[in-house]
Amino acid sequence: MADYQQILNTIYNELLQREDKGEVASYIPELAKVEKTKLGIYLNRVHGDNFGVGDAYTKFSIQSISKVFTLAMAFANQGNKLWNRVDVEPSGNPFNYLALLEQEEGIPRNPLINSGAIVVADCLLSTYDDPKAELLKFVRQLANDNSIDYNPQVAASEMETGFTNFAIANLLKSFGNLENPVEDVLDFYFHQCSLEMTCEQLSNAFFPFANKGVCLQQTPCLTATQAKRINAILLTCGFYDEAGEFAFEVGLPGKSGVGGGIVALLPDNFIITTWSPGLNEKGNSYLGMMALEKFTTATKASIF
Amino acid sequence: MADYQQILNTIYNELLQREDKGEVASYIPELAKVEKTKLGIYLNRVHGDNFGVGDAYTKFSIQSISKVFTLAMAFANQGNKLWNRVDVEPSGNPFNYLALLEQEEGIPRNPLINSGAIVVADCLLSTYDDPKAELLKFVRQLANDNSIDYNPQVAASEMETGFTNFAIANLLKSFGNLENPVEDVLDFYFHQCSLEMTCEQLSNAFFPFANKGVCLQQTPCLTATQAKRINAILLTCGFYDEAGEFAFEVGLPGKSGVGGGIVALLPDNFIITTWSPGLNEKGNSYLGMMALEKFTTATKASIF
Amino acid sequence: MADYQQILNTIYNELLQREDKGEVASYIPELAKVEKTKLGIYLNRVHGDNFGVGDAYTKFSIQSISKVFTLAMAFANQGNKLWNRVDVEPSGNPFNYLALLEQEEGIPRNPLINSGAIVVADCLLSTYDDPKAELLKFVRQLANDNSIDYNPQVAASEMETGFTNFAIANLLKSFGNLENPVEDVLDFYFHQCSLEMTCEQLSNAFFPFANKGVCLQQTPCLTATQAKRINAILLTCGFYDEAGEFAFEVGLPGKSGVGGGIVALLPDNFIITTWSPGLNEKGNSYLGMMALEKFTTATKASIF
Amino acid sequence: MADYQQILNTIYNELLQREDKGEVASYIPELAKVEKTKLGIYLNRVHGDNFGVGDAYTKFSIQSISKVFTLAMAFANQGNKLWNRVDVEPSGNPFNYLALLEQEEGIPRNPLINSGAIVVADCLLSTYDDPKAELLKFVRQLANDNSIDYNPQVAASEMETGFTNFAIANLLKSFGNLENPVEDVLDFYFHQCSLEMTCEQLSNAFFPFANKGVCLQQTPCLTATQAKRINAILLTCGFYDEAGEFAFEVGLPGKSGVGGGIVALLPDNFIITTWSPGLNEKGNSYLGMMALEKFTTATKASIF
Repeated sequence: MADYQQILNTIYNELLQREDKGEVASYIPELAKVEKTKLGIYLNRVHGDNFGVGDAYTKFSIQSISKVFTLAMAFANQGNKLWNRVDVEPSGNPFNYLALLEQEEGIPRNPLINSGAIVVADCLLSTYDDPKAELLKFVRQLANDNSIDYNPQVAASEMETGFTNFAIANLLKSFGNLENPVEDVLDFYFHQCSLEMTCEQLSNAFFPFANKGVCLQQTPCLTATQAKRINAILLTCGFYDEAGEFAFEVGLPGKSGVGGGIVALLPDNFIITTWSPGLNEKGNSYLGMMALEKFTTATKASIF
Repeated sequence: MADYQQILNTIYNELLQREDKGEVASYIPELAKVEKTKLGIYLNRVHGDNFGVGDAYTKFSIQSISKVFTLAMAFANQGNKLWNRVDVEPSGNPFNYLALLEQEEGIPRNPLINSGAIVVADCLLSTYDDPKAELLKFVRQLANDNSIDYNPQVAASEMETGFTNFAIANLLKSFGNLENPVEDVLDFYFHQCSLEMTCEQLSNAFFPFANKGVCLQQTPCLTATQAKRINAILLTCGFYDEAGEFAFEVGLPGKSGVGGGIVALLPDNFIITTWSPGLNEKGNSYLGMMALEKFTTATKASIF
Repeated sequence: MADYQQILNTIYNELLQREDKGEVASYIPELAKVEKTKLGIYLNRVHGDNFGVGDAYTKFSIQSISKVFTLAMAFANQGNKLWNRVDVEPSGNPFNYLALLEQEEGIPRNPLINSGAIVVADCLLSTYDDPKAELLKFVRQLANDNSIDYNPQVAASEMETGFTNFAIANLLKSFGNLENPVEDVLDFYFHQCSLEMTCEQLSNAFFPFANKGVCLQQTPCLTATQAKRINAILLTCGFYDEAGEFAFEVGLPGKSGVGGGIVALLPDNFIITTWSPGLNEKGNSYLGMMALEKFTTATKASIF
Repeated sequence: MADYQQILNTIYNELLQREDKGEVASYIPELAKVEKTKLGIYLNRVHGDNFGVGDAYTKFSIQSISKVFTLAMAFANQGNKLWNRVDVEPSGNPFNYLALLEQEEGIPRNPLINSGAIVVADCLLSTYDDPKAELLKFVRQLANDNSIDYNPQVAASEMETGFTNFAIANLLKSFGNLENPVEDVLDFYFHQCSLEMTCEQLSNAFFPFANKGVCLQQTPCLTATQAKRINAILLTCGFYDEAGEFAFEVGLPGKSGVGGGIVALLPDNFIITTWSPGLNEKGNSYLGMMALEKFTTATKASIF
């Protein structure tokens, strides 16, 4: 059996020595403050021990990774009816592409680009009286950790400067694909993005996607088919316009966030989360992408 | 000399008999109430008598025609500096409207499409303490008529349902091409669109564009060069994606509005305004376009 | 263990009874002649017996499925240098196909859309003296069957009417991404598309992609990494703008052709080929897609 | 009355002293050889004397200016039926934009972009037995000068390297908007572009557009309405994506060519042709644009 701790340590030490660490996202002022030298990796093995290294136990802003949690909630709640309002095709374009949304008349390409996640958020607003509380409850259950919370300053910061998301939400509204007021939907959306979690918590929370829908605490939260289908969406759409590259180089379903986190998983096998806040030019964590390539090369892990 | 009254009467009578009168714009609830049978034409001759027929003295919502007034104010005030924030090229595209703005990184194609007019509105907000009062004063002076006013219900109606314009303004803001808050700019913009004028008032108010910048009351409001340049923009950009068609069929600079008004002019010669609320599929007044084609055919008027 | 023969028989019988069988592609005159009632399925299990049903032993025009063979040849031959000329991202767009290529300045999105496959064909022309003979040799070896051949009539038919492909090749040439003359590249490309194979032959020929690069006859033709990476491309790009849908519904890497064939595979497990010439609106085999959904549902096969 | 000779001399002398003269087009090898210091201007006054300066009597490759002649032939021949195959709207995009053509399903935006001119060329091929001879005859008659001819080397050079035009023609063919074989249409098209004329000859040949359709020799070649309509197309579409800018700055209908020529006209007044082979970044003659701005400023000439 592979010595996972040693593999993680080696990767960690190699990457920390690199001078180039990417660029920390500057468009969300609160995120711009995080130090580039942070690097954490946490491996949760479905049928075995867990391992962590570096800053694996430090909280960071999960940002777009939250889209997987809201998607799971909405899919579990609405079933396939959800796909009337959002498609499951890769977008192949930068994540804030309004052109595509306009051309396709308000039906977002998939639930992991901003427009799609805003539609999913709108579904949750229509479903729950207090969607923020429900989402928090859901994520805390998944991770089995009640310390997880929103960062209201990050949410407020995005509410003030997130003009592109306001443009997207208004465009969705103009096409009739937003049921609730723009302000309310975005308030929820910016809150979900502001969730702060550690690599360990994220790996734990993604357990059901690697375990046929059954979460860490052995309670089912999705059907096995739903879990598979979310993995398919992660693989084809999880990395903006670098989704193909990630499938090609890493070969695992996964999701990145602009806060520098990446979660990837091998069904029935493991979930691995990396965090390093410097981003590559496509908006994915620079060292995180490298860490995952090195890990899958070392372990020969791949769905293919 | 042509018998203008007879020409107008003939056109009026011919067009009123047509069964097909286009479709009244339904997306602005207040406008949807206007009767399709309305038809007015008013001719203001720069060096001669004036003539009107039908509903030429009934007020209607001038909508996008207002963009010419705000453009004139901003151009007179800022000079060519204005062109740093908005271009003067025809857009040619209606349906992927935000796409174009996104692709060109927040610089609208021209000041007569919505995005461009919103930038112009933003300029006026940065210039004047009370831009709504200033615009009203300007238009009243041009038309020499203090009865002209906003329709606050129409403005409010658009403020509630104008999601596409909110999308545009937020996209402009995301590209740094909007100085004032989105809500403030759009409040002004929707007010300017709600201006109500008659065919006679519009013909009078467009006098300076046909008279080297000098208005009806003989006070200069633009330089001769500025007036010429606005005419050039009207010709190339005044009719959305039907601009080429209008230049081809009618051969005059002009501007249409979704309220069913069209103003066209032959420099140093005349201004003609038509109003009929039914629109063709491109969003221009159906009978108004026909009236102008018939008028220019009858009088051989053309800039070409 | 599952009774695969019975599963295939059940699927076959259910689908044959459907009235709606999709529409046979009409734009290639030679293909339009094939009867819609044809339906074949062939399962090749990597570590077990093989099974066939219906028209699994009838040859058909493999069309775009051939892109996988030329990709394998070029990747084996050139290694990662190939990716300088073609990307590995999903395209997501069918209808503005040249637009994408123009926008991305002659670098096709991936090797499975026409533009990418034409670049791959160009690579083979630059590599081999007689690329048609080399491709035939390669495919015959993979399938262990020397009866496989081109259909020169189909190739000639496409050469005469394939104006879109001529447009693509010329656009590639204008961007400097085609080394050989347009006519020569397309002559080869249309020949590769004209290859005729049975479901059985295709399943056999795809063996190395499911077997770490080692073919049916136990000779290695790709490295294990190359085989994995081609599977990743198949999953993200194998079904035009229905790639996400196929990953979502079927959950396997695969490739379809306009002749009605589909090959899909579960690494280290099986290859399954279906053939039915009626297509759905996205251009993929209508009954074939259903057959694969039913098969993966029945067997719970999925990479996710 | 203005002293036109002095105005032209002043402009000529001012512009020759500029260091920056733009860049000579390099994509047509034959054109790349022309010296940047060439500058000619020729003014043909409809009701008065004519004036020339500098290289006004040197032949150059008229390139896209030829599109106006073929448009005039096709419009005279087919009347408004022509507009079923090509639109009259500005394109607002670079001249080789295939995206637009694809999106609008093979109907070019206007007859002055390459795709539109190729459709017009196709019309002439369907109309005449020997379209090359007919075009030559037509242009020689317009200019009253039998020395005008094609440059077969330039035509051959473009036939070998004009891959973008081959892409366009094949795309038109794929949409069913090309009646004749691609090779034949482009052979004619590249010949029309290779016509060589002087500033004087071009000014003479454009006489009917400024003279209600009646040519220099007083024979009618277009109706007055057709002449007006071609002027409208020139104004809205004559300068690729700088059409609005030209209307704004110069205020005259006109057409530029990549060989460095520009023809502009004021109806019932004059035709002016400039030639200087250095181009600006939009592909229009750098000094030519300046010369026309200076001329219209000095003479206050404008259609507006």
